[in-house]
Amino acid sequence: MTRAPDRHNKPRLGITLGDPAGIGPEIVLKAIASDDVLSASSLLVIGPASELRRQARLLGLRCDHESFSGGEISSLDSDKPVICDTGKLEQPIEWGQLSPTAGRAAIDCIETATTLCLDHTLDGMTTAPINKEALKLAGSNFPGHTEMLASLCGASESLMCFFAGDLRVFLLTIHVSLADAIAAITKERVAKMIVLADRELRRFGIARPRIAVAGLNPHAGENGLFGSEEAREIAPAIEECRVKHKIEVSGPFPADTLFVRAARGEFDAVAACYHDQGLIPVKCLAFGKAVNVTLGLPIIRTSVDHGTAFDIAGRGIADPGSMIEAILLAASLARSERSTQA
Amino acid sequence: MTRAPDRHNKPRLGITLGDPAGIGPEIVLKAIASDDVLSASSLLVIGPASELRRQARLLGLRCDHESFSGGEISSLDSDKPVICDTGKLEQPIEWGQLSPTAGRAAIDCIETATTLCLDHTLDGMTTAPINKEALKLAGSNFPGHTEMLASLCGASESLMCFFAGDLRVFLLTIHVSLADAIAAITKERVAKMIVLADRELRRFGIARPRIAVAGLNPHAGENGLFGSEEAREIAPAIEECRVKHKIEVSGPFPADTLFVRAARGEFDAVAACYHDQGLIPVKCLAFGKAVNVTLGLPIIRTSVDHGTAFDIAGRGIADPGSMIEAILLAASLARSERSTQA
Repeated sequence: MTRAPDRHNKPRLGITLGDPAGIGPEIVLKAIASDDVLSASSLLVIGPASELRRQARLLGLRCDHESFSGGEISSLDSDKPVICDTGKLEQPIEWGQLSPTAGRAAIDCIETATTLCLDHTLDGMTTAPINKEALKLAGSNFPGHTEMLASLCGASESLMCFFAGDLRVFLLTIHVSLADAIAAITKERVAKMIVLADRELRRFGIARPRIAVAGLNPHAGENGLFGSEEAREIAPAIEECRVKHKIEVSGPFPADTLFVRAARGEFDAVAACYHDQGLIPVKCLAFGKAVNVTLGLPIIRTSVDHGTAFDIAGRGIADPGSMIEAILLAASLARSERSTQA
Repeated sequence: MTRAPDRHNKPRLGITLGDPAGIGPEIVLKAIASDDVLSASSLLVIGPASELRRQARLLGLRCDHESFSGGEISSLDSDKPVICDTGKLEQPIEWGQLSPTAGRAAIDCIETATTLCLDHTLDGMTTAPINKEALKLAGSNFPGHTEMLASLCGASESLMCFFAGDLRVFLLTIHVSLADAIAAITKERVAKMIVLADRELRRFGIARPRIAVAGLNPHAGENGLFGSEEAREIAPAIEECRVKHKIEVSGPFPADTLFVRAARGEFDAVAACYHDQGLIPVKCLAFGKAVNVTLGLPIIRTSVDHGTAFDIAGRGIADPGSMIEAILLAASLARSERSTQA
């Protein structure tokens, strides 16, 4: 018999259920049954307990975990997941249907998890997918988790980052139109984000991060033939980070080959200028294995790399792979943070 | 003993040497030694013969093929490559060095190959990489092969397309800044390009091409939250192609997941709005195996998916994989075209 890992050393993680009309509850139930997940972390599942149990019954999944309401969490450090109940829902949930009730439930999970991370009850959180339209119906105008978490944590800047094995990609702009993304690629922003990424990668155990910056334009502008943002904004930002902040950052490089170079180990992280420039390679190189990490928060937060998948919600066929990877990465980041702080 | 394939049925292909200061001559010499290539096609290597032989000697590669000057091609349909000599160079070539001589040599190859395709001496051509700066030094202002070939052929429109196994990606805009690409995504342009792609894919044997169009903005605009080009330009173009031209085209789809869907077989081709949106997934999903095909020309033209690689020119380590794939695809397209015309 091997000894179980010392339970008090295991990172304590909150797992939010996301939008309950999507596949969130299903993938959470499947993920917390994984031996890898259970041996890597102590888990607090955060969401509407009665709804979670109802879905478990309908889907034929196990859900005999103890539940507590928000204020009473006492026995988290066990080898079994426990549920932090965010309360009964006002309306029944229908799989695949947008509703303010589901949007509100998703927000409640995130707010509770954030509070528990900020007061150090938890070492980090992993989030199931939410639906922006449902958030809007519930009266929230955040375009996504990243922005909501930054606001809840009072963080002035955050970075959406994707970890896929040795490939790490962070986004200089996120949920804006492509035209607005171009306008947002300023020297100031690029430099600030590189400084933030460098600091955060060190926090998570990479001693001297090698950061590469993608060009905004084809061929990184081809010496000014196809756009001036590289020479005007990106290159000066890189220079400032190298000289003033002593960061090992290089570029701007043609984006089409850069991500393959990074995946082969040439760089520790790549800065992508806009959403699709970063997300296309992440999904092509590591579909279903990439984990979304929010950098720049005072807490640790990881997330699946997919959406609510309303089209298959309730059918029992959702793949928990990305959720499992996201929990394992949160546990790994929490351990790295402990080591760098020690 | 197996019988050699009927030489008269093999497609006759021209292979250009590209910029002689790059890896073009080396990968051509390596590719034309491949049994697969020799059994699929009859080859005419087009370029400066004495320079090719000089490089072959220095690199230790075989180059004992017969050579002819432009007007004298008589014995192309053989099982051995022959060389169409574009003439002696004015200045010696130095590997890795930009020069007007190298740029002029690259242009001569392309012009000769195009002429031989247009007069049906050849069934198609495969091109080695060129350097835009060298073209400029030689007095040409074309940003790349695609635009030069369209001009030489008198084609009003051409499409840069990449074939990588079952993934086919064509670009709605190419060598322009990202800001200019956004401005160029008009209903008229998108519709015209879809019609062209549909016609060309049929020409090459796909009976009813399933074409998907990528959104320009993140999440394909998320119902107008992040940009209006999808609703204003792209969706109406798709609708027009479906209704007026009966084309099986759909979208706009979020670009981050679309290319993985297409690579898995859901679509025959994807329209990418801009260079990096199409090239990033091509390189991530099929690095070194993708072939660049110019659609919309009266001739067949394929190309490697990489550049001149000045940094490794002359070292003998260049990988001919993409050149071999490009020649095999040209041969395959020529056979498909024959069948659809039959």
